[in-house]
Amino acid sequence: MRTYRYPKKTEWKELTQRPMIQREELSDVVQNIFEAVQHNGDKALLEFIKKFEQADLETVVVSEIEIENAEKEISEELKVAILKAKENITRFHAAQKSEIEKIETVEGVTCWRESRAIEKTGIYIPGGNAPLFSTVLMLAIPAQLAGCSEIILCTPPDQSGNINPAILYAAKLCGVSRIFKVGGAQAIAAMTFGTQSIPSVYKIFGPGNQYVTSAKEYAQRFGVAIDMPAGPSEVLVIADKNSIPEFCAADLLSQAEHGSDSQVVFIATDEEIFMETIKEIENQLKALPRNEFAGESLKNSYFILLNSIEEALEFSNLYAPEHLILTVKSFENYIPKIQNAGSVFLGNYSCESAGDYASGTNHTLPTNGFAKNYSGVSLDSFVKKITFQHITENGLQNLGKTIEIMAEAEGLLAHKNAVSIRLKS
Amino acid sequence: MRTYRYPKKTEWKELTQRPMIQREELSDVVQNIFEAVQHNGDKALLEFIKKFEQADLETVVVSEIEIENAEKEISEELKVAILKAKENITRFHAAQKSEIEKIETVEGVTCWRESRAIEKTGIYIPGGNAPLFSTVLMLAIPAQLAGCSEIILCTPPDQSGNINPAILYAAKLCGVSRIFKVGGAQAIAAMTFGTQSIPSVYKIFGPGNQYVTSAKEYAQRFGVAIDMPAGPSEVLVIADKNSIPEFCAADLLSQAEHGSDSQVVFIATDEEIFMETIKEIENQLKALPRNEFAGESLKNSYFILLNSIEEALEFSNLYAPEHLILTVKSFENYIPKIQNAGSVFLGNYSCESAGDYASGTNHTLPTNGFAKNYSGVSLDSFVKKITFQHITENGLQNLGKTIEIMAEAEGLLAHKNAVSIRLKS
Repeated sequence: MRTYRYPKKTEWKELTQRPMIQREELSDVVQNIFEAVQHNGDKALLEFIKKFEQADLETVVVSEIEIENAEKEISEELKVAILKAKENITRFHAAQKSEIEKIETVEGVTCWRESRAIEKTGIYIPGGNAPLFSTVLMLAIPAQLAGCSEIILCTPPDQSGNINPAILYAAKLCGVSRIFKVGGAQAIAAMTFGTQSIPSVYKIFGPGNQYVTSAKEYAQRFGVAIDMPAGPSEVLVIADKNSIPEFCAADLLSQAEHGSDSQVVFIATDEEIFMETIKEIENQLKALPRNEFAGESLKNSYFILLNSIEEALEFSNLYAPEHLILTVKSFENYIPKIQNAGSVFLGNYSCESAGDYASGTNHTLPTNGFAKNYSGVSLDSFVKKITFQHITENGLQNLGKTIEIMAEAEGLLAHKNAVSIRLKS
Repeated sequence: MRTYRYPKKTEWKELTQRPMIQREELSDVVQNIFEAVQHNGDKALLEFIKKFEQADLETVVVSEIEIENAEKEISEELKVAILKAKENITRFHAAQKSEIEKIETVEGVTCWRESRAIEKTGIYIPGGNAPLFSTVLMLAIPAQLAGCSEIILCTPPDQSGNINPAILYAAKLCGVSRIFKVGGAQAIAAMTFGTQSIPSVYKIFGPGNQYVTSAKEYAQRFGVAIDMPAGPSEVLVIADKNSIPEFCAADLLSQAEHGSDSQVVFIATDEEIFMETIKEIENQLKALPRNEFAGESLKNSYFILLNSIEEALEFSNLYAPEHLILTVKSFENYIPKIQNAGSVFLGNYSCESAGDYASGTNHTLPTNGFAKNYSGVSLDSFVKKITFQHITENGLQNLGKTIEIMAEAEGLLAHKNAVSIRLKS
């Protein structure tokens, strides 16, 4: 745990650096996986699954029976929770639908935008210790609301060839059309090129380890879009004397448990809250089952004392955190000063886990400073907006001269002629 | 000019292929340019300008005096036209601002999104024969509307070290903060890393040749976002017996004159209109000053007879054209069938050049089939949408159990604890 008391602004930039990611080594591995999948399709996938998951499969396709059984395997309590979360996520994302608004820019010239779903979308859900069925909700719900006609999901099986039932249940519930047992860069390659079993898609969503991240970047070379570039998860908490150290510590730890490369930053403007939060972290850490992850990631993390909330927000905008928790008094006054962040949690009771699971906002957010130039996933991520225009004869009379002059000045006389020939007629 | 009469659906996929782009050779060149600019900054830029533009400059910075002089050099007529276009583009893009809508997903749980400008944006404008000041309008107007605090522009100078005055005038008019005389991959590298003169930016916009396209892709590895992947410009025109062959031919040629790699596709459901349009193209082509470009690009192009408008739209959705001109009768009935396109022009008087210059819609659009998964540039391209949430004590009572159950099922107990510790208090 590294602490900084009133660092000078010249030192800030260094404090906004994320733990380094090794990229170069990955690209050869990913390229080889892509080539194998492109040329050998399902056969290559089954070999990779044997190699990486130690599972011996005959097909990557999840059967209807497996999906039906999954529903029986999970508790009623969990089903109810998933349904409630689905309701809230649906409510928030459905409100993002945009009405068609026709604008008459000039008399007789009407322009507007209409949304159309990205027809084929693919969702990647990592395996590992934590079965991220919540991410299934966060990606499949807006995909279904947008009207994507094909929503597929890839996730790695365990050694026995099974997928966590909560993932299958959530996928079925949220309209995923087909589910496949394959993980890692090979899953991304399969959704890029298509195989005998897995269809190719136009856009790939979802988190993953460094191989998956690298594979998603690589997939773009083949015309596939991705949700956003990714990095390890992170939170920045800003506290003043109004904040509650127990809560701050719990939020910092909930981020830290994601993995040893997660980063948490704590900024306080009050010395006492600063010290107590650090003490609370040590207390709470001992009780956590994933405390080896959390302990590691706390080593990458910064605890900073600053003079004012304004200064803290200036730092936060430079850092551009994925999650920003603003537990300070009169937080509403500071909202306009927030420039770069993925998702913001206001006050003492808006814990990050609410947004991670069930409040309704999306948890697929820009990390690694990308909150400076990317939004999190929303309904917009699953649609294209097409512009339309209708110009009447009269409209072209009003607009024609302007177009002719500009086209001529750009030396594009066929552009001019397309107008002149109509005006003459 | 290649004509196809009622091709079978099995042949369609081949007809949607774009002319191939060589990519591999470019990447070494681009990588070397990036390394030179990263390490030698302005010095490298001045050397590249000497090499590629044959211009001997002392600085890449465009001075205030150059900008003032530009205004004197362009005609009143062109100024008026640019101002009118600006007005329309502003009207259409200003309407894209989204209101803040707060959603109470559960009692006591309020979620919403707010837009924030991407603070630092860079615009690239190519040089060459056609001085694309219209693209300055299309990118700088929404950037200014979004509230980007820094909008810089790079464009290559001519041999005497000058920039076309219309580009300078449009840039000044639309709030570009600083203009630099540098083109090609080196301009993209400069905006990625920053140099002594040129600031680094968070997102790069604008068209360019294959080096620029490749450089923009490469820039993403360094955390910079780009507007969209690019390819040569294209139009698909759908005509029935209601269409006017003269107009269709003029629209096809206005696209073809962009460059020898542009692609135009013409689909008619009426044999007579089909033949007459082909004849008209030959007639009009002779009169065009850029007819060597247009002639070349017509060689890459397809003229297709199909049975019905429905079939034509099915083909168009597979092709996913940058521009779609639908000149058919009762075009409004076919709008819901349009799934993949960048910008759509409806009826006999909505020529593509209207949207290229002055109707108000943006002309920076997805090419090369990317209309399947990308939107064109809009106000959205210059902002991030940040999600906010405020949860009251009561709100967390309502939501808490759901979060606890889900977090526990994912094995993330610190996530659960962030809620439990609050519920207990």
